[in-house]
Formats: sequence, structure tokens, C-alpha cells
Amino acid sequence: MLNIQGIAASAGVAIAPVFKLEHPDYTVKHRGIEDTAAEITRLEEALSKSQQELEAIKARTQQELGEKKAEIFESHLLILNDPELLTPVRDKINTEKVSAEYALNETAQQFISMFENMKSDYLRERAADMKDVTKRVLTHLLGLNYVNPAEISEEVIVVAEDLTPSDTAQLNRKYVKGFTTNIGGRTSHSAIMARSLEIPAVVGTKDVLSKVSNGDLLIVDGLDGTVIVNPSAEVVEQYTAKRDAYLQQIEEWKKLREVPTVSRDGVHVELAANIGTPNDVAGVLENGGEGVGLYRTEFLYMGRTELPSEEVQFNAYKTVLEKMEGKPVVVRTLDIGGDKELPYLDLPKEMNPFLGFRAVRLCLEQTDIFRTQLRALLRASTYGNLRIMFPMIATLDEFRQAKSLLLEEKAKLVSEGVAVSEDIQIGIMVEIPATAVLADQFAKEVDFFSIGTNDLIQYTMAADRMNERVSYLYQPYNPAILRLVKMVIDAAHKEGRWAGMCGEMAGDATAIPLLLGLGLDEFSMSATSILPARSQIAKLSKSEMQELAAKALQLGTAEEVVELVKGINQS
Amino acid sequence: MLNIQGIAASAGVAIAPVFKLEHPDYTVKHRGIEDTAAEITRLEEALSKSQQELEAIKARTQQELGEKKAEIFESHLLILNDPELLTPVRDKINTEKVSAEYALNETAQQFISMFENMKSDYLRERAADMKDVTKRVLTHLLGLNYVNPAEISEEVIVVAEDLTPSDTAQLNRKYVKGFTTNIGGRTSHSAIMARSLEIPAVVGTKDVLSKVSNGDLLIVDGLDGTVIVNPSAEVVEQYTAKRDAYLQQIEEWKKLREVPTVSRDGVHVELAANIGTPNDVAGVLENGGEGVGLYRTEFLYMGRTELPSEEVQFNAYKTVLEKMEGKPVVVRTLDIGGDKELPYLDLPKEMNPFLGFRAVRLCLEQTDIFRTQLRALLRASTYGNLRIMFPMIATLDEFRQAKSLLLEEKAKLVSEGVAVSEDIQIGIMVEIPATAVLADQFAKEVDFFSIGTNDLIQYTMAADRMNERVSYLYQPYNPAILRLVKMVIDAAHKEGRWAGMCGEMAGDATAIPLLLGLGLDEFSMSATSILPARSQIAKLSKSEMQELAAKALQLGTAEEVVELVKGINQS
Repeated sequence: MLNIQGIAASAGVAIAPVFKLEHPDYTVKHRGIEDTAAEITRLEEALSKSQQELEAIKARTQQELGEKKAEIFESHLLILNDPELLTPVRDKINTEKVSAEYALNETAQQFISMFENMKSDYLRERAADMKDVTKRVLTHLLGLNYVNPAEISEEVIVVAEDLTPSDTAQLNRKYVKGFTTNIGGRTSHSAIMARSLEIPAVVGTKDVLSKVSNGDLLIVDGLDGTVIVNPSAEVVEQYTAKRDAYLQQIEEWKKLREVPTVSRDGVHVELAANIGTPNDVAGVLENGGEGVGLYRTEFLYMGRTELPSEEVQFNAYKTVLEKMEGKPVVVRTLDIGGDKELPYLDLPKEMNPFLGFRAVRLCLEQTDIFRTQLRALLRASTYGNLRIMFPMIATLDEFRQAKSLLLEEKAKLVSEGVAVSEDIQIGIMVEIPATAVLADQFAKEVDFFSIGTNDLIQYTMAADRMNERVSYLYQPYNPAILRLVKMVIDAAHKEGRWAGMCGEMAGDATAIPLLLGLGLDEFSMSATSILPARSQIAKLSKSEMQELAAKALQLGTAEEVVELVKGINQS
Repeated sequence: MLNIQGIAASAGVAIAPVFKLEHPDYTVKHRGIEDTAAEITRLEEALSKSQQELEAIKARTQQELGEKKAEIFESHLLILNDPELLTPVRDKINTEKVSAEYALNETAQQFISMFENMKSDYLRERAADMKDVTKRVLTHLLGLNYVNPAEISEEVIVVAEDLTPSDTAQLNRKYVKGFTTNIGGRTSHSAIMARSLEIPAVVGTKDVLSKVSNGDLLIVDGLDGTVIVNPSAEVVEQYTAKRDAYLQQIEEWKKLREVPTVSRDGVHVELAANIGTPNDVAGVLENGGEGVGLYRTEFLYMGRTELPSEEVQFNAYKTVLEKMEGKPVVVRTLDIGGDKELPYLDLPKEMNPFLGFRAVRLCLEQTDIFRTQLRALLRASTYGNLRIMFPMIATLDEFRQAKSLLLEEKAKLVSEGVAVSEDIQIGIMVEIPATAVLADQFAKEVDFFSIGTNDLIQYTMAADRMNERVSYLYQPYNPAILRLVKMVIDAAHKEGRWAGMCGEMAGDATAIPLLLGLGLDEFSMSATSILPARSQIAKLSKSEMQELAAKALQLGTAEEVVELVKGINQS
């Protein structure tokens, strides 16, 4: 029995045998052949097997995870049938008399390195897709023993160095009971995916892969980040009880779906969800979301070759508003730039993109893009309860400019005879320290604040949250962060506005008691966090949490705050 | 008469004819020759002329700007005599029978593109040097009409697209009365150089170069950023009066050299200087500095191939402390990383270096580097009034770690029998928003704060100050910045500590009334700003400025703050 500690990435407990997901060695050596026709046949067979696999994976992904997530496999199928790739491969076999795997690998590598050297992110992604497809075909040609995660057909826990997007998209919840990886953190792609699939996961164990063999019994405790290899019968029993208790808790949570979120002492707060596309609304309603606290509209702009039209946007916004049936929907206007690029805008490379020309800064300069979005939003406003918020606002002046563009477009629409709601709240994201510090001045002009903690923390601590060397400074519980949050909430209340939060922190069990105590009105989080949060809040007394928060504000370090909250959460 | 508005980059008024500094066309075409001996002679003559020029420029730079600034020309001379460059050039003339300029240009371009493709900053700088030298020799070989700025021998105002470091280093104050450029800002290299040379300058005019001809009479008003082309006699008279008044004011300022800095109502504050090397101390004393508020030790680490030894550092710190004769010297420990790289440390490239692994973050991991510096500082401490401050402190924990390393090294030295001062103040830079917000907690543990506004502003506004697209957000007068400054000062005073400032803002005439009102104890600035600041403060009443600052804290925008201060500065 061996205990390994990692990072709890997705809640729940899994107990099942190990399935090591390791990519085999795809090295291809030069091999001459005589019978070119036979070699061509080998190639066609491998292509055909790959095609079947991909179609199966695509169909299952569509069914289980939706159309959007299945798109990647559509791209793979296109590559697999692309004559631009295959014609040179066949030619190479015929003229150079080399093996199919050698011809394929040489040709694909040429394309890959060409794509990788391109400036465009779109083409660089094509390189990644082509690598995936090449590996798939090579698996057949080389007779490698690689079991695709999509083909797992008995209950296992997947153990890997890391999981690629293509790996995670193929995990079948029915058989994959949990996973654990050597690398990654709570916000890495595989962790986010695990939470959305509701599979228990522990990431960042550093060395779990080398400590297990296929078939070893494994416990993955995604509640506290523990992995246990070959547990004793007693430990299995103990964790089976823990798993069952958790599953029962989930059932309890489900009962809270239609219940308003009220603290033990009777104070109501709003629990909303963060979404990226209209498809996500179903999950919000299933999980009892009282609204959408953050609709990230940038997904509308991504994965295309030109800007989305007003009509495309209007339809998306209208769909979300209609599906939410009058519940509030806070739409964030375009937040692009920084780490999120749009190839067709061709923005210049920046030395520090997180401190650069992004979000509202870009929208206020490229006003045509902004106006189109505002018009689409205004036209959709009559289909539900729309709230509009501007991201990355640093100065009052920026807010005034953005608001006046909105009012201009509204006036135009009205004069064109288009119906526009008269009750649209206009607010801002508070994610820049200056804006938090000056919240009292902003509160006189905005209808609401939504605190974006992901960025607020990285700017306040001057630490890039994606940079592992300074990730120890990404401290949501640092008293400085709590003080800024308090400034924003107090400022809002003084002017009769509401204050929400839409960063990771809003759904975090350690932060929730503090945020309740600080007076936060709206908590917007991943849909799957809503019910646990509602359950947690029901057990907390807001007036007690006010005392807790007051104490936390006077502490010196994040560690002390965590200690303080631990006392409450355990009591 | 034409008025052009630019950015006031260096104070004073200049009136003189235009000298357009334009680099000629260095395009070299292939040209075959017959007489290779004659061509070699042409080459040697051009090299020899270039050598003479460079030696003259080097000597003058040494005399007027010091050894350090002259080093660039030493590098140029080395290149000019480098057989690795010249042997292939001579070979090319002899074997390929091409002109000297063609042979030189082809060979140099090869080296330049090789250097430019290197990862090392050091080698990339060598590329820039080689370009400079090649141009110089080509000027002679092509018979180009390029007057080197160093050769200007009558009174002129230099007008250029921009000035390179090599250009500015060659400006002779005796003849160059001022300069104006199309591009650049207040913190661009040429602007900083102009202030240190005390030449009036206006930068960022966008198009002055195309609006003037050689010999046009020009007025450059570096006090308000105006350039006037071919002024009328009346205007010349008016600006002559303004220039004389300014020169007289400088004389008045000089009288303040030995006078303490006292406000109109009798409150003393300390005016200190920012320095980079021991050579800068002379300027501090000449300008009546009451101390060194920021000694940037990173220059000790730059321009070398390995870390500076403890002995090299000890000597530098000792020299500064001795020369300052007991006046306080605040030494900032190594602030490297971000935009400042050290090739020999081989730090990984970061996506957002300003939010990355730099300064104390690096020192706390690479403690061997840090300990060496701390030992050198401790050993030097008995030679003057040493204060040590740590840069980029974001959490109490980081400060505690840094301080405990310092105390460890102190204990070691004491046990080795080395004398160490018992009165070293230990403080921190406040340049991260979290630290300002939590200053009351820090104040319980540090001896002093020094607010680093350059970084504090960029993090608080989430805007890279080097990125022109968001430079409008670099707002020192934003009320949010003033509020953070107030938090820091109030926190210091509550615990009986002092608070200083060592960013650009401390020497800024618009900021000074506000900072005095907020209670700042120490202002550290460019040495040349000290006397004007002392004169300004002598005219201000601290109690009136307290009222002013209180009003400013309640304003919404930087523009409103500037308006408010304008009222005071004009009265």
C-alpha cells in the first residue's frame, strides 16, 4: 500500500484497477520495400481502421459531450482523407520504394513543421491535429499496442503523465471511474474537463505513473487529493464508505435544485453559473442555477475565420435569454487579447499580453467590432433579463466611453423601430486593482459589479497565474485580495448596487464563508459547483461569517486565513 | 511660423538653427573592380578615418560623460580592428574582385544576421554595434555626406526621427543647444539622456523632421513641449526671455544646494537621489541630495559574463557609502528578470515577464546569488549609513524569508569576526498592489517602505508601461494610485516607520504637492530634479497640501486630479 499526494482536481472517490495510458514509441526508421502494391494496401488498411475509430469516437463524443466537443474529430477525419497529405505519401511509396510508415511519417512531419512555423494559431493547431492523426495511423502500421482511451471497456482508473484535450474528450464516463496524472493543477485543461465530466481526479502527483502497474487496485480521492496504490481491504472499506457518503451527498444536493439559496440565518444570496455557449444553459438549469453570472461571449468569435455577424450573435444571445426564462443573464462583452487571440484580427505580439491591449481596451479602439456586439445584445434584450458588463475596465473614462457607445446604438435601434428592453443593467467586471480601489467612484455610475478574481488576483499579486515559477503567489485567500473584495462590495451597497463574483474563487468552499461574510450578493461559478455551494451556505450563519471575515481582514498571510476558515468549515 | 506640439522631455528653452540628423542611404550594390591593391588601400583609408573619429568621440565622451558611457566606443574600436571581420573582407576583395564597400557590407551582414539570431542579448547587442561600425566605414567608402553628431561645431538644435544611444552619446553640449524628435516619450532613452545632459528636448512630435529644413530657426521649449519653426522676431524675444528666466531659476536652484528641504510652513522632508553606479554619487552631492533613496544594484550584474564576486560588490557598496559621508544610502537588492535579463543566468522565456520570476522571487530561490550580495552589503555596512530594501515583495512570507537570510549571513559574519553595523534599516519596495493594500501588516515588521511607482502603476492599472497601445493607462495621478500611496504612508506612520518613494513620480512637479500632502517622508528622484523639487516644496504649505490631497482622493479620474493641482501650482 502506497499513499501519493496530489492536487484534488475533481470531487468524488473512485476505486478501480489501474489503466496506464502511455503513448508508445512512434519512432519510424527508414525501411526499403520491394512490393509497392502490397505496401499501398497496408497504408489503405491502416487508414480505413483509423477512419472507423475516429467515426466511432466522434459519434460517442457528440452524444455524450455535445456537437462542439466532437468538432475536433471532424477535423481529424478531414486530415485522414486529405489528398494533399495522402498523394505525396503514395507517390513516395511507389517512387522511393519505402515502407508506408516511413512515407507517411516523412510527409506528415514536413507538413507539421511547416504549420508549426506559421504565425497563425489556427495553423499551429492544425499541426497538433495532424500529429494526432499521424500517430493513430502509425499505431496500426507499426502494430503498436496502444489502447485508445475511447476504447476502454471495463471499469478502470486512468493513470497518465498528463491527458491531452484529445485524450480527455475520449474518456467514457461509464468505464473511466477516475483519473490521476503526474502533472497539471486545479485549473489545467484536464482538471476542468474532469469536473465537467464529474469524474473524480487527482492531478499533479509528480510520479504516480511510475509507481503503478496495470491492474493494480487504485483509490483516487478527488476530495482531498490522495491516491492510494494497492490499498488493504480495510482501507478499501473505508474509502468505499467515503465514496458512498459522497454519492449520497450528491443526491442530497440534487434536492436543493429548486430551493433558493439561503444562509442558516435566513439571508438570501444568488448562485449563478458561468457559461461559454448556449449549449451550457441546460447544465445551469439542471444544477439549479438562479441565473447566468458570466456569459463569456468570446467563444462566439473563436474557431472561425472572420468576425461573427450581428445575426449570428443575436441568435446566440436570444437563445440563452429565452432558455433562462427571465432569470438574469450577465453577458460579458468581448474579452479578447491577452492569452486569447483571434487570428483574423492579426493583433501585434506583445511583451506582456496580460498587461496589454485586450478586452474593452480593444473594443474602444475597434469600435465597429464593439458596436456590432452591442447591437446584437440590444436586439436580444427583449427575450429575457439581460445584463451587460464590460471587462477589464481600469478607469471611469473607459466605462463612460463604453456606456455611451451602448446608448448610441440603443438610440439608433429605437429610431429604426427595433424593440429594446428598458431595464438592461449595465455593469463592469472588477478585475483590475485600480477599479477595486476606486469602486466607490464607479458605484455612482454602474448598475453592478462582478469581481473577476482570476485576473484581479494575478494583477494584485503581480504574478502570471499561468507561470508555474510564480504560481505560489496566486493567492485567493491573501488578506489583500479579501480587502479589495470588501471595498467593492461596500462601495456597491453604499450606492444601492449589487456586487457579484465570477472568478474561480466564487465556487470555492474555503472562500464561500468569507464571501458570505463580506456581503457578496451573487456567486457565479461552474454549474456543477452550485448545489454543493447552496448546501454549504445553508449551514452557515451570515452574521457569524461577518465576524469571521472581519478577523480574516486583519490577518497577515493567506495561510493564516486558510487556518481560520478551516476552524469554521469543520465545526 | 509653425507651432508643433510634442512631449516635454527635458527642461529648458533652446533657440538655434536646425540641424537635421538623417542617416543616409547605405545601400551597397555589387561592383566588380580590377585593381585589387588600390581597393585594399581604399579600405585601409576608410578604416583609418573611422578609427580616428572613434578615438576622438571616445575621448570626448570619457571627459564629458564618464568612463562608463565611453565603453560603447571602445567596443566599436575593437570591432574596427577585429581580424575575424577584416580578413574575410580583404580576401573577398582579392579573390572575388569586388569593391571594398561590397566586400565589407556582405561580410558584416553575415556576422550581423548570425548575431541577431542568437538567443543571447549580449550577442544581439554586438549586432547593433557592428551595424554602427559598418555604417561608419561605409560613409567613407561611399563618400556619403553624413555629419556625425559628434562633429557638430556650431550652435544648433538637432532634429531627427529618433536618436539612437550612439547618437545621443555623441551630442556635444557646447554646440547642441537642444533636440527634438518625431518619436519617443518622457521615459524613452533619448529623453532620459537629454535630462542627464541638461539639454532642452521635445520628443514625440510625430512629424517635426518633415516640417523643417537645415538652417531654419527653431525654438525648442522643453518646459511645455512646444517646438516653433521660423518664429517671428517678437516670439524669439518672448522665448529668449523665457530661456533667461529659466537659466536664472537654475542659478536660484543652485543656491539651495546646502539648504535642507523645508515646506513653507516649516515641515522637513528628505530629497534623495536614485543612482545606478558609484560614479553617480558625484551628481547626487552636486545637486544637494540628502541621501541615496535607491541604489539599483543590477548594473553590477549587467554587461559581464558571470556573476559579480562578493569582493566586486563589496567595493562598489563601500565606495558609495563612503562618498555619501554618513548620509543614508538605500540599496535595493538584485532586481533582475522581467525586462532585465542576465545572459549568464539563462532564465527561461516567460509569457508575461513583468508578472514573472524576477527580483526577490528569483533571489529567494537562487539563494547563493542572494547570500553573496547580502554578505557584500553587510561587510560594507560599517562604512556609512546603509539601508537595505528588497524589491517586488508581494507577501509577508517573502519578506520574512529575505530578512532571515540576511540575519543568517550577518550571524555568520559576526562569528567570523567581521564587523557589521548594528543600525541597518531593513525595508521593502512597495510596487505590488497587494503590498500597498496590506501595508499596515507589513509596517509591523519592516523598518521602512519605498514606493516604486513605475511598477506599482503598471500593476494597479494592469497596463504594461512599455506597450504604446495601453500607455494611456499609465496614470500616476489616478486617484486609485494616490489612495494606495496614502495607505502605505498612513500604515508606516501608525507604526512609527518612514515612507519614501523612488519611482519617476517622486520628482514630478504635479505629483509633489499631492505627495507632500499625503505625508511622504522621503522623495527619491533623478539627481537633476532635486533642486527644482526643493524650490517647489519651499513654496508649498504642507497643511494646505493635506487639504489638496484629501480632495484629490475623492476625485474620479486622473484628469480631474491634474486640473486640481494646476490650480495650486499656478497660484
